[in-house]
Amino acid sequence: MSKQILLPYEDRITQWYNVLPDIPNGLQPPLDPENNQPMAPEKLLAIFPGALLEQEMSPNPWIDIPQAVQDIFAIWRPSPLVRATFLEKALGTKAKIYFKNESVSPSGSHKTNSSVPQAYYNQQAGIHRLATETGAGQWGSALSFATQKFGMECMVYMVKISFDQKPYRKAMMHTFGAEVVASPSKLTPTGQSILAKDPNSPGSLGIAISEALEDTVSHPGTNYALGSVLNHVCLHQTIIGLEAKKQLAMVGDYPDVVIGCCGGGSNFAGIANPFVPDKLNGKKIRLLGVEPASCPSMTRGVYAYDFGDLSKRTPMMQMYTLGHDFIPPGIHAGGLRYHGMSPIVSALYREKVIEVMALHQLECFEAGVLFAKTEGIIPAPESCHAIRAAIMEATKDLNEPKTILFNLSGHGLLDLASYEQYHAGALSNYEYPAEAIAEATKRLPKIC
Amino acid sequence: MSKQILLPYEDRITQWYNVLPDIPNGLQPPLDPENNQPMAPEKLLAIFPGALLEQEMSPNPWIDIPQAVQDIFAIWRPSPLVRATFLEKALGTKAKIYFKNESVSPSGSHKTNSSVPQAYYNQQAGIHRLATETGAGQWGSALSFATQKFGMECMVYMVKISFDQKPYRKAMMHTFGAEVVASPSKLTPTGQSILAKDPNSPGSLGIAISEALEDTVSHPGTNYALGSVLNHVCLHQTIIGLEAKKQLAMVGDYPDVVIGCCGGGSNFAGIANPFVPDKLNGKKIRLLGVEPASCPSMTRGVYAYDFGDLSKRTPMMQMYTLGHDFIPPGIHAGGLRYHGMSPIVSALYREKVIEVMALHQLECFEAGVLFAKTEGIIPAPESCHAIRAAIMEATKDLNEPKTILFNLSGHGLLDLASYEQYHAGALSNYEYPAEAIAEATKRLPKIC
Repeated sequence: MSKQILLPYEDRITQWYNVLPDIPNGLQPPLDPENNQPMAPEKLLAIFPGALLEQEMSPNPWIDIPQAVQDIFAIWRPSPLVRATFLEKALGTKAKIYFKNESVSPSGSHKTNSSVPQAYYNQQAGIHRLATETGAGQWGSALSFATQKFGMECMVYMVKISFDQKPYRKAMMHTFGAEVVASPSKLTPTGQSILAKDPNSPGSLGIAISEALEDTVSHPGTNYALGSVLNHVCLHQTIIGLEAKKQLAMVGDYPDVVIGCCGGGSNFAGIANPFVPDKLNGKKIRLLGVEPASCPSMTRGVYAYDFGDLSKRTPMMQMYTLGHDFIPPGIHAGGLRYHGMSPIVSALYREKVIEVMALHQLECFEAGVLFAKTEGIIPAPESCHAIRAAIMEATKDLNEPKTILFNLSGHGLLDLASYEQYHAGALSNYEYPAEAIAEATKRLPKIC
Repeated sequence: MSKQILLPYEDRITQWYNVLPDIPNGLQPPLDPENNQPMAPEKLLAIFPGALLEQEMSPNPWIDIPQAVQDIFAIWRPSPLVRATFLEKALGTKAKIYFKNESVSPSGSHKTNSSVPQAYYNQQAGIHRLATETGAGQWGSALSFATQKFGMECMVYMVKISFDQKPYRKAMMHTFGAEVVASPSKLTPTGQSILAKDPNSPGSLGIAISEALEDTVSHPGTNYALGSVLNHVCLHQTIIGLEAKKQLAMVGDYPDVVIGCCGGGSNFAGIANPFVPDKLNGKKIRLLGVEPASCPSMTRGVYAYDFGDLSKRTPMMQMYTLGHDFIPPGIHAGGLRYHGMSPIVSALYREKVIEVMALHQLECFEAGVLFAKTEGIIPAPESCHAIRAAIMEATKDLNEPKTILFNLSGHGLLDLASYEQYHAGALSNYEYPAEAIAEATKRLPKIC
């Protein structure tokens, strides 16, 4: 049998699945920090195009993928669903392990699934330039690729420490034609003020978000773009799970458990959300999110209204959070280092539609190396979390013939320096002390 | 229409095409430097398994691909044939441009097509360890992956300057479980002797080949493996062109010109050789090899017997060569920096079955950046040569609706440092003075 289950182009996904109307007890609206009232959409139009704001709160379960977006998706989509036969054999399990290979995209991760439609809707709205932040670089790479496809400029504020540590990501963004600066930069008031105090500041995602927002409002024709957390980003990622469902059906299979790693939540939402209606309709299926033990927003955080960024510039969102000023330790799965969790994924966890577990980085790298050796793909450190969880599911009872589906969110080719550190025994685990989390969640905004 | 033309697994290639019996006037045998007589196969059995030596001189036009090799190929094969619609549009050409995407393999290049069968045949022959050399790292990565799939050890001598400049390649080989040392190393007589004279020697492919050969003969159960040049390597690579032919037939097309870059010759042979019988039977098709202007073995070298390595340890082969002690300049297409050319490709050029052109590195990087922006894949510097040539063919006459097929031999994700240098304007072209080539080719071995 073929290892790769390829969805014919004719059977491609042409509509995203919007989970919003299906979430039991729904989502609470984002609040305006100025008055603690639901955010007025007009205010957000200053930084987002109307089409994305509509998607952000749409009651429609299905939303058409524009043809121009489908045309670009054709470069790498439908992405392969792969039966991990060599991994199964190495584990000696009777479980069937399938993974969705999102590493085949131009930026090497699932992020391109949202950067392309975001660039498209902005271009349609007359925007000629997008500003964004990037931590490890996946989102910046994805938006760099997407913007130039629509003839737009792209300005990326990249967290200084990553800017220095991950020169290949920077080179990728340059190759796609984007401008990239280390954040804090001299280009914005926030950057200038931080550099004045500390010229050697390593930066943070919170600072970079502030800089991108300041850049946006100070440049006419510029909008802001975010690579995770928001509802429309989760929406765009559902193409992953929708394709996977069709591909599994091609081989007459259906998952007992669906697994994805959780940072901001979009890659997990992408593979899991399309299975939510089945579960709500009584189908026996588990949806399992995996977060890093060093940044355990769902397993150890609180469910509350909080800001999306350190500098309190975003609306407040109801979500699982460790507190907006929680600074996660420097694990190598940079994409999972976020204090909060997408409101959609948070609400699904609140309603017990999904389960969540937390894993340490060493066990995840170990799983990633086994995966590379068996399946021939070096996974992103983020994706290693999903792989570890899949292995745990497959080895609980080696004789149970269950079907496991996980999302390989990206490859680790630009993260090989962290693998080298792992091989050298230079990495360690991090466990945040309970008191530190209790302390950080004390500083949540008071909304009533 | 789909951009990706996917060959169903059921239609996969199960036999390699051996061009040897079809080469007009054939190949001359390799000669033993000890007596200038045809090399006795028994001598080569000390470093190669019998099955590969049989393939090296087989008169059979078709050779079965073992099932165990096919099973591993299923990880990434059949590889996609892609219609470069976005590139065509950017060029404003009526030509159809197709490329075979070999970047999807576990090591990111076509090299894995030969490393897997080489590891397999060695394991079948009772060998438990392979030694090899690698320059830029593509072959070392490919053999590292393949050996561990068959439970074998792998020892890679990596040219010191690449070992230092390309740490991600080293990390990839470590992840696949190989041992990698900088060459010259302290592990072999050759390495020791060079380090004694110059502890900071940057190494060379010639030195690394010598070290791998010395390692092989001094370790029982160890064989040697080479990633290009030899007939059996070209044979294994024909799966590329055989798949491409079937994929083009799926869309009712056939190429007017087939293009591949030429270093040792295996990737060009891989895409071009399956079209040789058609051409010899009168079909109107051009087969175009592209070599770097800085290492122009075919366009400026001589056709003669020469050694495959600097230290004269290999048999002498009849080929186009710049002389075995020709040291190419440090262009970033490391895989094209070889003084000679595969005897098979050389003979096809001798017989005017194929054409060859030479290109400079700056024009190739320029083409690579355009390709990345349009088609979403950052190509290896080697592959940029084929892309440039394809663009030249497509723009000679923008209104000519010709069909172009080229081989994208690999991705450039581990070569992004060279792209960054290109963006910064830090790269230049190299043109070897005619006198230097005349001088180097004076030192060819005297065989009569």
